[in-house]
Amino acid sequence: MRTPAQNAQLSLLLEVAGTPKPGNVDRHRDLKGLRFEHFLAGAVGAQRGLELAAEGGGVGASFERAVCGMAAQGGGNTQFGALLLLVPLVRTAREGLTPSRTERIVESTTVDDAASFYRAFDHVDVFVSDPPSDLEALDVRRGSDAVATLRARELTLYDVLEQSVPGDDVAREWVRGFERSFAAADQLATADGPLTHRVATVFLSLLADRPDTLVTKRHGEAAAAEITDRARGLADRNAVETDLEAVETFADDLVERGLNPGTTADITAAGLFIALEREAIEP
Amino acid sequence: MRTPAQNAQLSLLLEVAGTPKPGNVDRHRDLKGLRFEHFLAGAVGAQRGLELAAEGGGVGASFERAVCGMAAQGGGNTQFGALLLLVPLVRTAREGLTPSRTERIVESTTVDDAASFYRAFDHVDVFVSDPPSDLEALDVRRGSDAVATLRARELTLYDVLEQSVPGDDVAREWVRGFERSFAAADQLATADGPLTHRVATVFLSLLADRPDTLVTKRHGEAAAAEITDRARGLADRNAVETDLEAVETFADDLVERGLNPGTTADITAAGLFIALEREAIEP
Repeated sequence: MRTPAQNAQLSLLLEVAGTPKPGNVDRHRDLKGLRFEHFLAGAVGAQRGLELAAEGGGVGASFERAVCGMAAQGGGNTQFGALLLLVPLVRTAREGLTPSRTERIVESTTVDDAASFYRAFDHVDVFVSDPPSDLEALDVRRGSDAVATLRARELTLYDVLEQSVPGDDVAREWVRGFERSFAAADQLATADGPLTHRVATVFLSLLADRPDTLVTKRHGEAAAAEITDRARGLADRNAVETDLEAVETFADDLVERGLNPGTTADITAAGLFIALEREAIEP
Repeated sequence: MRTPAQNAQLSLLLEVAGTPKPGNVDRHRDLKGLRFEHFLAGAVGAQRGLELAAEGGGVGASFERAVCGMAAQGGGNTQFGALLLLVPLVRTAREGLTPSRTERIVESTTVDDAASFYRAFDHVDVFVSDPPSDLEALDVRRGSDAVATLRARELTLYDVLEQSVPGDDVAREWVRGFERSFAAADQLATADGPLTHRVATVFLSLLADRPDTLVTKRHGEAAAAEITDRARGLADRNAVETDLEAVETFADDLVERGLNPGTTADITAAGLFIALEREAIEP
C-alpha cells in the first residue's frame, strides 16, 4: 500500500528510531547540535526528491532535490549518505528491486547526474576528506564550481563515486551492487523483537563487519578499528538480545567521545528500505 | 519550504516524539501493542489524504483517505483524532490559516463529507462510547452502514461532530473554532528548550486544562479528573522545566495503569501543525 517513495521516507524514520545505535542519534540519544527532531524534519523534507526518483527521474536530479529538502532543518546534514543509497534504490524499485537491476541503474548514470551530485553539496555541509592532488579540481566541497571540470573529463556519477572507493563505504555500495544493504535487509527480516531493536541488531552487525568510513575520515583508522572491534565483541554474542545494557553503555560512550559511525547508519537505512519494499518487515 | 501536507506529517512525527507525554506513546515509551514505529508508519501512510486536503479536496474524502493510509500498520488506530483536526486545518492553510477561516471550512462540510467520515470507521477500530438511543442508527461503529440514515436526516459532518459535544474534545475543536489548537500553537512558540520538551510542556498544559475525553470514555470521569488534577499540579510549577523527574514518574504511572489521554495528544498535534505553518517553530 505504501509507495516506494513512502517506504524510503519510512526507512529514514525507522533508522533514526532504532536504538541503541552506538554513536548515532537514536530514539534515546541526541548529539550536540544534531537532534532527533532534525532527522524527522529531514525525512519529511526529502519526500519530493524521493518521489522524483520513483517517477523515473534522473538519479542525480532526484538526489539533489532530496538533499535540498532534507537540509531544510536546523541540524544540517542529517541524511545525505542515506539518500545517496536510497535514491538509486527507489529509482530501481519501479522495475523490481534486485541487486543486478540496482547495479544497472547506477552504472547508467551520466555526467548530468554527476553535476547534480556536486550541486547537492551547495545545499549542505558534508564532512569529506581532502582529495588526492590530481583530483583537487573535483573536490566535492567546490560544489557546483567543479561542474566544468566534471564535464571536461566526462565523468558520470558512477565514475565519481568509484573514485571515492576505498575510503567511503556509501560509494562502495554503488560499485559493489549494494551488497551490504541487501544483506542488512535479509538480516532485518530474520532478526527478532520489535523493529526498533531489530534495527539496533543490524546496525551493530554492520559496525562489526567493517570500520565506519565516516569515523575513519574524522578521527582516523585507529578510532574506527577500535569501534569495530568492540562492536564485533558485542555482535558475536548477540548483545542486543542478551546483554542490552552493554550495548547501551557502548552507545553512551561513543556519544560522549563524539564518535559518530554515520556511514553504518546510512547502510542501515538502505537495508530498511529494501526490507520494506519486499514486505519482509511490517511496521 | 515544506508544504502544508508535509507540515501536517511532521506535526504527527513531532507529536509522538515529544516526551514525556504522560500515558501516551512518546520518544521513550511504548504502550502494549501500540509502539513508536506504528506512529511513524501511520504518519507516512496518512500522506496522500493530507495532500488531497491541501489540493482543496473535500474534508470528508481527504480524511477517509488519510485514515485508510494511516491504518496500514500493525498498531491499529494511531492518529484518527489527530487527522480529524489536521485535515480541515490543512484544507484551510491554502487560504491562510486563521481560526475564522477554519470555522468557515468546517461549517461548510456536507452530507457527503459525513458519509466519508462514517466510511473511515470501516478502516480502523476507534474507541467510542454508546450513543444515546435516538442516535443509535448513527452509531459511528456502524461505519458505512449508517450512511443511508445520514442522508435521510441530511446531516453534514459538522452536524455529526456537533452532536458529539460534550464528550469528545476533538469534536469540540470543530465547533469552537479550534481554540485549544491555536492556543497550543501560541504556547509552543513561546516555550523553551528543544522541541521534544516543548511538546511535553504544551501536552501537560492541555492535560491540566480539561479532562481528556478518551480517558473519560474508557475509564470514567473520576479517572480523567484525577489525571487532570495531577497534571495541573505539575503544569502550575512548570515541572517539565523544573522537575522533569516528577513528570517522568507521572508518565510511567499512567502507562502502567493503561490510562491513555489520546485526545490531548490529538490537540497537541494540531497545535504543532499551526505553529509549523506560521513558522513559529523551526525544527
